[in-house]
Amino acid sequence: MEAITTRELEFQKQRIERALKEGRIPDAIALWLKLHPADRAEIFNALDEAQQRTLLTHLDIATIADLLEELDDEEAAEAAEEIPTERLADVLDEMEPDEAADLLGDLPPDEAAKALAEMEDADEVRPLLVYPDETAGGLMTTTYVALRRQTTAAQALDFLRQVSDRTEIPFYLFVVDKERRLVGVVDLRDLLAASPDTVMEDIMDPHVVYVTAGTDQEEVARLMAKYDLAAIPVVDAHHRLIGVITYDDIVDVLEEEATEDIYHLASVSDEDIDPESPVHEQLKGRLPWLYLNTLTALFASWVISHFEHVIAQAAVLALFQSVVAGQGGNTASQNVAMTVRALALGKLKPRALLRVLWRQFVVGLLLGILVGTVVAVGVYFWRGNLYLSLVLGLALLGNLSVGSVVGVLVPLALQAAGVDPALASSILVTAVTDSTGFFIFLSLAAHFLSKIAAG
Amino acid sequence: MEAITTRELEFQKQRIERALKEGRIPDAIALWLKLHPADRAEIFNALDEAQQRTLLTHLDIATIADLLEELDDEEAAEAAEEIPTERLADVLDEMEPDEAADLLGDLPPDEAAKALAEMEDADEVRPLLVYPDETAGGLMTTTYVALRRQTTAAQALDFLRQVSDRTEIPFYLFVVDKERRLVGVVDLRDLLAASPDTVMEDIMDPHVVYVTAGTDQEEVARLMAKYDLAAIPVVDAHHRLIGVITYDDIVDVLEEEATEDIYHLASVSDEDIDPESPVHEQLKGRLPWLYLNTLTALFASWVISHFEHVIAQAAVLALFQSVVAGQGGNTASQNVAMTVRALALGKLKPRALLRVLWRQFVVGLLLGILVGTVVAVGVYFWRGNLYLSLVLGLALLGNLSVGSVVGVLVPLALQAAGVDPALASSILVTAVTDSTGFFIFLSLAAHFLSKIAAG
Repeated sequence: MEAITTRELEFQKQRIERALKEGRIPDAIALWLKLHPADRAEIFNALDEAQQRTLLTHLDIATIADLLEELDDEEAAEAAEEIPTERLADVLDEMEPDEAADLLGDLPPDEAAKALAEMEDADEVRPLLVYPDETAGGLMTTTYVALRRQTTAAQALDFLRQVSDRTEIPFYLFVVDKERRLVGVVDLRDLLAASPDTVMEDIMDPHVVYVTAGTDQEEVARLMAKYDLAAIPVVDAHHRLIGVITYDDIVDVLEEEATEDIYHLASVSDEDIDPESPVHEQLKGRLPWLYLNTLTALFASWVISHFEHVIAQAAVLALFQSVVAGQGGNTASQNVAMTVRALALGKLKPRALLRVLWRQFVVGLLLGILVGTVVAVGVYFWRGNLYLSLVLGLALLGNLSVGSVVGVLVPLALQAAGVDPALASSILVTAVTDSTGFFIFLSLAAHFLSKIAAG
Repeated sequence: MEAITTRELEFQKQRIERALKEGRIPDAIALWLKLHPADRAEIFNALDEAQQRTLLTHLDIATIADLLEELDDEEAAEAAEEIPTERLADVLDEMEPDEAADLLGDLPPDEAAKALAEMEDADEVRPLLVYPDETAGGLMTTTYVALRRQTTAAQALDFLRQVSDRTEIPFYLFVVDKERRLVGVVDLRDLLAASPDTVMEDIMDPHVVYVTAGTDQEEVARLMAKYDLAAIPVVDAHHRLIGVITYDDIVDVLEEEATEDIYHLASVSDEDIDPESPVHEQLKGRLPWLYLNTLTALFASWVISHFEHVIAQAAVLALFQSVVAGQGGNTASQNVAMTVRALALGKLKPRALLRVLWRQFVVGLLLGILVGTVVAVGVYFWRGNLYLSLVLGLALLGNLSVGSVVGVLVPLALQAAGVDPALASSILVTAVTDSTGFFIFLSLAAHFLSKIAAG
């Protein structure tokens, strides 16, 4: 069960693969079992399907349960489909109820129903199946310790010792009334420090931070991070305790949410894909957004088409129109990223809106002056046309100011409208900065056309 | 110390501000003290400087210590600068050593030296000052419990009870030899379940996952997430235990690292700024990247300049050149985001490189065909020029294939070169897709110029 370095892990992986290839299955399994479950999962993942099947046939129920708990949702489902239903039911019984419910939710419905029917502890898992994956209900486990107000510290510790061979002792214990309504939380460490006859009521914290089953996982993570909680209780509409979410789930949630934001900002709508995913999944998560982007790009083409006669007289404009549009877009993207992140971390308050917009207008103006001047001077030395440089500098000034404001305004507006600001902002913002950039530059150029075309 | 909803918090904030404005300072403080420290910090942050100063003058040492621990690094430093040195030293003594060290590191050097000189527990904090913020040494605390192999469970529990009024009992205890070298870890829950005369050696896990003081915080977070650890020990070069990092620090690290990646992908190099930050900080974190982007944009202009005579004869090309460049860029950005994220999560293995590149070439080709066809047909209906449509479609096909491959190749190459792939990839990739896009489109168009110009 040792955790090892990446290099040692690679070495062990090669040994295990060699053993499997040479048919020395007991050797392979012995080597594999020496590893930490997290490392076992990593190696299992890298094996080909036939090798995975061989391992699954030879492992015992408890080891498979550990493995499935460590694998990512999708990978676990793929592995589970290789296991005969009856055996799978035993594995599911052995798993933590929340993990078993997640797995069942990822299996084909008929397969899940069959496995559930064969399970002994189906009753523990079934209530968890109704909650969507990305809510508190989907994250919580139903194995927790609930005590009554009048329980003494000695009784509580005795109880924990009794159950410790069957279940992991939690870091927090909950105190409920006779209707199972949550009334307090006891830190295991306070219990330990308390004198034996202290009752729970005296050491519990009655001001419990809790969530309801429908709370979004992002909010759960935000609360646990804000209040430094190792576990948070989940209650139903009647304030009855129905489950607990622990800190290790939150790490996964934070990573998922970060991936989602990064993907959405880059117009990838399926956060389960990566560069290795099957081609059809890539197309599904990417093509719709490229089509939408194409539409806005063609709109920008239409804007340019109004200046076709201008460009026909001064083709040099075609060299620099994209610089104006592009730098406006880059400025806007910087603001979109900062705004989306500030919203995700709860750092932007609605009443700061006007101040932020004004500040970003100033920032855009300054960036526009600084970038515009450099480009104007550089292009003057290249092309030697004062009017071209002037128009270029002014257009950059204008478009960077627009980009900067639009870059905060659009995500804030989308958030207010209940749309994910990360997903739609990039495209909307680029549509604006492209069209505006082309329009400002080409209409200014049209004004000085004789001077520019002469140069 | 109650945790409350956002709306209740807003309401309390208004009451506190009103009390401060009306000079009812004891009322304001009484209301404020009723809140959870995390909420206190949030409200403190929203007050203006004069109000903050008033609060700081009237609060006791322990409350200020709690507050500074909850504030973000920068905010804590700003608040600390308002406190007279002698009082600040007392506050620092009251803080957790790792938090005190972080704060001292963020103060002006002479101020930090003065406060440190006045501290009573300076010896606990001083060793922590040498570690950079973003390493395990910078995250760890020196308050932990280390036991010997032969300590019994009863002795350990007694010891924990004795220290519990001075320090928080940790979830994990560490076992060291007589040179303080780390030999095992004991889960508090196993200690609780053990019979009183069991020695640590028998319940400890000798295969401890640990880090050294210089380990990067991202690696620390990765290990704690992978092995579901609530705490990880830090050792020196001689394997001697020197500190512990707990899960709440990791949540902050994960959020910081996600912010960093999101900012870097959008060419913002200072992850401490947000849309509300002072103007000069915004310029510092954004302008250098806009300049770099401008340089690559002007390089693309130079590519176009070779086709100026072509555009002069067919200005219509200026309408569509950006569509080709832009869609190549968007395709590449999708891959950059996925690749950077896969690298951050340790999901891309070096030996998968060729397979991934090939897959992304296929994806790019398909996206190119699908986007190219739609654009070609659409533009045919608009402009009625078959050759223009054909050239546009082919150029999109080419540039999306290039963009897709470059979008994985560049971040992987940067990572291999030891550069942060998130920061440099966007700019390098756009430089390629812009230049290539313009070149493919315009050189194809030059080939069919008579047909396109004929219109």
